[in-house]
Amino acid sequence: MFPTKKVQSMIGSRIRVEMKGDNHLLEGVLESVDDYLNLHLLDTVEIADEERLRSLGSVVLRGNNIILIVPVE
Amino acid sequence: MFPTKKVQSMIGSRIRVEMKGDNHLLEGVLESVDDYLNLHLLDTVEIADEERLRSLGSVVLRGNNIILIVPVE
Amino acid sequence: MFPTKKVQSMIGSRIRVEMKGDNHLLEGVLESVDDYLNLHLLDTVEIADEERLRSLGSVVLRGNNIILIVPVE
Amino acid sequence: MFPTKKVQSMIGSRIRVEMKGDNHLLEGVLESVDDYLNLHLLDTVEIADEERLRSLGSVVLRGNNIILIVPVE
Amino acid sequence: MFPTKKVQSMIGSRIRVEMKGDNHLLEGVLESVDDYLNLHLLDTVEIADEERLRSLGSVVLRGNNIILIVPVE
Amino acid sequence: MFPTKKVQSMIGSRIRVEMKGDNHLLEGVLESVDDYLNLHLLDTVEIADEERLRSLGSVVLRGNNIILIVPVE
Repeated sequence: MFPTKKVQSMIGSRIRVEMKGDNHLLEGVLESVDDYLNLHLLDTVEIADEERLRSLGSVVLRGNNIILIVPVE
Repeated sequence: MFPTKKVQSMIGSRIRVEMKGDNHLLEGVLESVDDYLNLHLLDTVEIADEERLRSLGSVVLRGNNIILIVPVE
Repeated sequence: MFPTKKVQSMIGSRIRVEMKGDNHLLEGVLESVDDYLNLHLLDTVEIADEERLRSLGSVVLRGNNIILIVPVE
Repeated sequence: MFPTKKVQSMIGSRIRVEMKGDNHLLEGVLESVDDYLNLHLLDTVEIADEERLRSLGSVVLRGNNIILIVPVE
Repeated sequence: MFPTKKVQSMIGSRIRVEMKGDNHLLEGVLESVDDYLNLHLLDTVEIADEERLRSLGSVVLRGNNIILIVPVE
Repeated sequence: MFPTKKVQSMIGSRIRVEMKGDNHLLEGVLESVDDYLNLHLLDTVEIADEERLRSLGSVVLRGNNIILIVPVE
């Protein structure tokens, strides 16, 4: 399964996304993803030191600034 | 709804955009967006520590330097 | 008007461009722009702390390293 | 062998990937790779100072934020 | 004249190029340029604090990491 | 000779590559290169302060994170 297909397979489930920049970690339910790995997340929260920092709700993330994507069990 | 479509759906409403760089947060009314997520904002203000820092007016943002986009309620 | 069209509409007038990197602000007369937002500026000056720092003259800026573009009144 | 073909030849074996950002080193089994060098890794661990820092499991890495890829013997 | 055409017009003459990263300034004779603004420079020197720091000779620069290009009179 | 052709002409010889990030310098024998300047190097070593820091062997470098490429005499 190609990397982008792998991300598509996570639609509807909770994922953790690390963005460029210092300690920039977000967690949310993956609503949609395109070929550039642009993501639309729902119920998004910012995470720092493994604690919920701030609730952001519906968020669009620019794909080229994503470092990595991990499913949250 | 794909991430770019989601952003298009915000045209005419107020959004918050986090750009690359330290604490680079902007808020404005989304006037237009293209496939690269380049944005044209009106009535744009820079935000720091949740306060209005500086009024920029009409601003064009380069899509690849956007970290995330959030609608402002 | 799409974001790139908005920038094209500024040809011949003075713009302020924020580039990636620390405090990297430039001001000049927009001579030309392409689809990647690569810019050719004339009479360009570097700005720091709202003062003219250094005169650069004719400058080409790489589009993907532009954070934002604002018209100067 | 082209660089992307070289990476494809590592599928099924353990690789080390250095990402942008400070000390951002990951090690895992390469499950898939596409033309942009987006990677899907299994059994991924974060590495710091040559020690296993954190286990991440299944991870998707965005290709444009990869600095380098090295096979692990 | 489009920005890339402007750079092509500098072939054979001395240019100054600012790259991403701290104080990363190079000066050399422009030998060739392509549509991505990848550059091939000859007689290249690194510059710091307006002094010649190190001679690099023939150098290829990756276009997307260029901040700006200025002709040297 | 276009910049990418110039790099292709270095196949089989030793090159020095500066990557994004702090002091990230690599030296190796260029095995292959593609249109994005993705590189496959053999006998690669990390360099710091003009000394060999660490031997990495066979390495794939992502083109968009390359700052510059210089032949090693």
